[in-house]
Amino acid sequence: MPATTVSVADLITILERLRARHPLVHCLTNHVVKNFTANVLLALGAAPAMVEHADEAAEFAAMADALLVNLGTLDEPQMAAIRRAIPAANQAHKPWVLDPVAVGPLTLRTLFAREIVALRPSLIRGNASEIIALAGQTGRGRGVDSGDAAEAALNAARSLAGQTCGAVLVTGPVDYATYGAETIACANGHPLMTRVTGVGCAQGAVAAACAAVADSPLAAAVAAAVFMGVAGDLAARVSTRPGTFATALLDALDQLDADTLRRETRLS
Amino acid sequence: MPATTVSVADLITILERLRARHPLVHCLTNHVVKNFTANVLLALGAAPAMVEHADEAAEFAAMADALLVNLGTLDEPQMAAIRRAIPAANQAHKPWVLDPVAVGPLTLRTLFAREIVALRPSLIRGNASEIIALAGQTGRGRGVDSGDAAEAALNAARSLAGQTCGAVLVTGPVDYATYGAETIACANGHPLMTRVTGVGCAQGAVAAACAAVADSPLAAAVAAAVFMGVAGDLAARVSTRPGTFATALLDALDQLDADTLRRETRLS
Amino acid sequence: MPATTVSVADLITILERLRARHPLVHCLTNHVVKNFTANVLLALGAAPAMVEHADEAAEFAAMADALLVNLGTLDEPQMAAIRRAIPAANQAHKPWVLDPVAVGPLTLRTLFAREIVALRPSLIRGNASEIIALAGQTGRGRGVDSGDAAEAALNAARSLAGQTCGAVLVTGPVDYATYGAETIACANGHPLMTRVTGVGCAQGAVAAACAAVADSPLAAAVAAAVFMGVAGDLAARVSTRPGTFATALLDALDQLDADTLRRETRLS
Repeated sequence: MPATTVSVADLITILERLRARHPLVHCLTNHVVKNFTANVLLALGAAPAMVEHADEAAEFAAMADALLVNLGTLDEPQMAAIRRAIPAANQAHKPWVLDPVAVGPLTLRTLFAREIVALRPSLIRGNASEIIALAGQTGRGRGVDSGDAAEAALNAARSLAGQTCGAVLVTGPVDYATYGAETIACANGHPLMTRVTGVGCAQGAVAAACAAVADSPLAAAVAAAVFMGVAGDLAARVSTRPGTFATALLDALDQLDADTLRRETRLS
Repeated sequence: MPATTVSVADLITILERLRARHPLVHCLTNHVVKNFTANVLLALGAAPAMVEHADEAAEFAAMADALLVNLGTLDEPQMAAIRRAIPAANQAHKPWVLDPVAVGPLTLRTLFAREIVALRPSLIRGNASEIIALAGQTGRGRGVDSGDAAEAALNAARSLAGQTCGAVLVTGPVDYATYGAETIACANGHPLMTRVTGVGCAQGAVAAACAAVADSPLAAAVAAAVFMGVAGDLAARVSTRPGTFATALLDALDQLDADTLRRETRLS
Repeated sequence: MPATTVSVADLITILERLRARHPLVHCLTNHVVKNFTANVLLALGAAPAMVEHADEAAEFAAMADALLVNLGTLDEPQMAAIRRAIPAANQAHKPWVLDPVAVGPLTLRTLFAREIVALRPSLIRGNASEIIALAGQTGRGRGVDSGDAAEAALNAARSLAGQTCGAVLVTGPVDYATYGAETIACANGHPLMTRVTGVGCAQGAVAAACAAVADSPLAAAVAAAVFMGVAGDLAARVSTRPGTFATALLDALDQLDADTLRRETRLS
C-alpha cells in the first residue's frame, strides 16, 4: 500500500465535496455530545442522523454515507446497535470511524473496543491514552482526558493502522494522522477547544463525513484534524471564553473555504 | 366540522396565553434535540418536561397540559413509554402531537408511527416525505431530510387529517397547516433553520404547547409555523452563520410579541 | 458537629482548588442537560464525565473525585447504574450529590429518591417542592418547577440534613444552604436563570465539583449557590434574552475570580 501525501489542495477538494454532496453520517455516539455533533456536521455541510434502535441501526448504516461509533456513554442497547451497524456498513462498503472514548481505565468498553477494532474501522480517532490502551499498551488516561502526550502514542497508532488497514488520528496540542508508513502532523487548533464539551467527539463525526468523500482514510483523518483545528483557530480570534467560543466554532466551520484553508493550514 | 379560519389576532391570543399560563409540555422526544427543545419552549413561555420511564410517563401525561411524541431516536423503552403516555393523555383530554421523524425509509418506526396514528394525534408535524410515508404513500426521504416538496404532500396531509380528526402541519420552505377542508400556507422562515439541528423537532414541541392553549388544532398548527418562522426571520437579521443564528433564534422567540406578529406574519 | 461558618475567603479557596485540581465529576444525570452540565463544569475548571453502564458506573465512581445523581429522566438502566455507583463512591470516600428532580408528583422517582437518601448523600440540591417531598412532607411541585417558596422548605431541609449528616441546598430566588444547626442564605442569581434549561441541574454538578475540594459539605453547597448565582448576575448584565444569556453564563463561570467573588457575593 503506497504512502499517500495529503496536500492542502486535497483538503479543499474534500471540503467542496462535503458542501456539494452533504454526506449522511450515521452517528452512534454518546448522549453528552449528540446535539453539538449534529450542529458541527450541519455547519460543515454534512447531514447528521442518529438512529439507535438495533434493528434500525443496521438498516440505516447501509443507507448512510458513513458511520461513527463513539463509546462515550456505552450501554447495552448501544452495544447491540453497534454490533449490527458495523457489519451492515462494511457490507455496503461505507467507511466507519471508531472513537474509543475513555478506553483504558474502564474495563467493559476496553474489551468492546478491541472486539470492534477487529471489524476494521476505516479510521480511529482518539487521544494518546486511548490509542495506547486500544493497542493493548498501558496508558495514563483519567476519565476522558489523556494522561499521555500524543507523540508517545505514535507507535501504538501505527500498530493499529497496520492491524485495521485504516488511518489513525491521535489528537492533542498537535494532531497526528497516520496510515502506518506515513505520518502527518497538524498543528492547528487552540487550547480553548478542550474547554467545550464534545469538540473531540464531533471531530470523530467530521472524520466520518470526510471519509465518505475523501480518496483515502489518511486524507479524511488529516481533513478532520485541519477543519476542526482551523475552525478553532478562527473562533479563538472571536472569543477567549468558552460559551461564546463554542458558538464561534460553529460559525467558523460554516465559514471555512479554500482561501482560509490555504492561509491557515499547518501541516508537516 | 366547519372550517376554521386562523387570523393573526388568533395567533396573538395563543402567544399571550403561552406567556400567561406556561403550559407544561411533556416531551417524549429524541436524544439529539432534548436540550434545544426545552430551551425553545422556555424562550417562548411554555414549560418543558421530559419524563421517560414508562410508569412515570403515563402518570405524567395526565398531569401535563400537552404531550409531544417525536420518533427521532426511537428505542424499546421509549416505545413502551409512548404506548402508555398517549392513552393517558387521551383519557385526560390533553392534546398530543406526533412528529414522525424519518418515517418512510426505516421500517420499525414506520410501523410504529402508523400504530399510534390510530390513537388520533391532535396534530401531526412532519416534512413532506414523512407525511407522505405516514399516509401509506411512497416518498423520497433520506434520513431526516425530505426528498419531496411540501406541496406534493398536501393530499397525504388531508388524508391524515381526515383519519385523525386532527390538524397536520407539513413543513418546508412554505409550511402548510390543514384540517382537511381548509389549508393555510405560512411563508415565514429562513433556510438557516435547516442548518441548526432540532429546529423542526422543537417546532413539534411548540405545536404541542400551542395545542394546550389554542381553540383548535388548526390554530395550533398555524401558530407553530408562524412562531418558529417569524423567529427564524428575525434571527436571520442578526446572523447568517449557524452558531450565532441558533442563539439568536432563542432570543427571537423570547422577543415575539403582538406587534412583531402583526408586522411579520405571512399567511395565505 | 459544630456549625461551620462559610466566608467569601473559603469560596475563593474552593474556586482556586477547582482551577488547580480539575476534579473529575461523574455525572449520572438527565438526558436534557448532559451537554450543558458538562460545559458548565468545564467553564468553571472541573472535568465532567458521564459513564452510564452499570458495570462501568461502579468502576468509575471509585476513580472520580465526586458523583452527581440527578433523577430528571430516570429509567431502569440508570437506576441500576445509580444503585451501583453510590456504594462505590461511599466506599472510596468520594462525596456524592443528590438532585431529586420532580420528586413529589411522580411516584417511582419519589420512592427511589427516598431509597438512596438512606445512602447518605454529602449534599442534596433541590427546589422547595422537591425538598419538602423528599422529606416526606406534602409539597406543590408541578413537573420540574416548584410550587412552594424556598423558605417553606427550611424545616424539611434541616430534617434531611440531620438524616444524612450532609448539607442541603434549597434553591429559589434566594438559595438556602443548611447543615442542620446553621443555615446560610445566598441572594445571588437572576430570574433569567429559570429561562435556560439545566441551570439548576448544572448547579448540582457544580456542587459535586465543589464537594470534591471543599472542607465541608456546607461550604460546597454555599459555593454552588454563589458560583452559579454570581455567574447569573454577571450574565444578566450582558444579555436579557435567554439564548445569549445562556452563552454569557458559561463565559461568566470562566471569568469568576477572587475579586469578582469579593465584590458580588451576597450571603447572610
